[in-house]
Amino acid sequence: MKKILMAMTCVSVLGTFSVMAEPAKSAKHAKDATQYRQAVLQLIKSNVGALGAMNKGAIPMNAETLQTNATRIEQLSMMLGDYFATDTTGFDVETAALAKIWQNQADFSEKINNLTLAAKNLNQVAKSGDESKFKPAIGQVFKSCKACHDDYKAD
Amino acid sequence: MKKILMAMTCVSVLGTFSVMAEPAKSAKHAKDATQYRQAVLQLIKSNVGALGAMNKGAIPMNAETLQTNATRIEQLSMMLGDYFATDTTGFDVETAALAKIWQNQADFSEKINNLTLAAKNLNQVAKSGDESKFKPAIGQVFKSCKACHDDYKAD
Repeated sequence: MKKILMAMTCVSVLGTFSVMAEPAKSAKHAKDATQYRQAVLQLIKSNVGALGAMNKGAIPMNAETLQTNATRIEQLSMMLGDYFATDTTGFDVETAALAKIWQNQADFSEKINNLTLAAKNLNQVAKSGDESKFKPAIGQVFKSCKACHDDYKAD
Repeated sequence: MKKILMAMTCVSVLGTFSVMAEPAKSAKHAKDATQYRQAVLQLIKSNVGALGAMNKGAIPMNAETLQTNATRIEQLSMMLGDYFATDTTGFDVETAALAKIWQNQADFSEKINNLTLAAKNLNQVAKSGDESKFKPAIGQVFKSCKACHDDYKAD
């Protein structure tokens, strides 16, 4: 709970978090909003890739890369709330985002916050240089991605 | 010069800046790299939109939105170096990125840094609350976008 409050505070300082979603105003608005939120998720994915490869031992653990990618995942995760604030369910857009997102905004927001927290933690762990903690911290990032995808992303 | 050095330092602390580009290793690598860099630019565009509307008076000036968007533009601009580090000129990708980008890396990097600096400045100006400085600070962001597009983006 304390962790969640910390994240909420941090996010609200930047004014980046929206709990109240609004329906898209037009087909173009819905299309643009879909494209933008997919861009954020794509960039998160591009930063998660190296984490997975390190976790599996496919590439060597690199504390500097972990810090860079964790920083970016944290920054991007803090954009997700706003980029998902446009409810596109009223329009025919190509999306894997389930309508449940806009019906369970508090839960969706909490899941986003969990990613922010996991990325922040990975950054700190990578900075500390204690390699024994790298894999668990990477695991937390993946866990928070999966928790949200399980509930809110179409298979 | 001092400003540029400050930005370079800031960027290198995060390890986000790559001067040496490398050719894409495969068609898939080139396609992914193109998609990712377009995602960063799309998100920058999505944050610049409100700045333009405020500048024209189409929407009211809002210091909080300026801070949020400037923060995001700064963060995203600091990703551009790495996302443009893959030279895709050897592959048939749909892109507006001119080959000159990878032939003039120092200049391209400096232009990216100018965007980082302009976004940082806009953030500070918005925080200060001095509305007389808002428009010039927004103008600097647009100027740095245009300077790079003029040289490195296909018409």
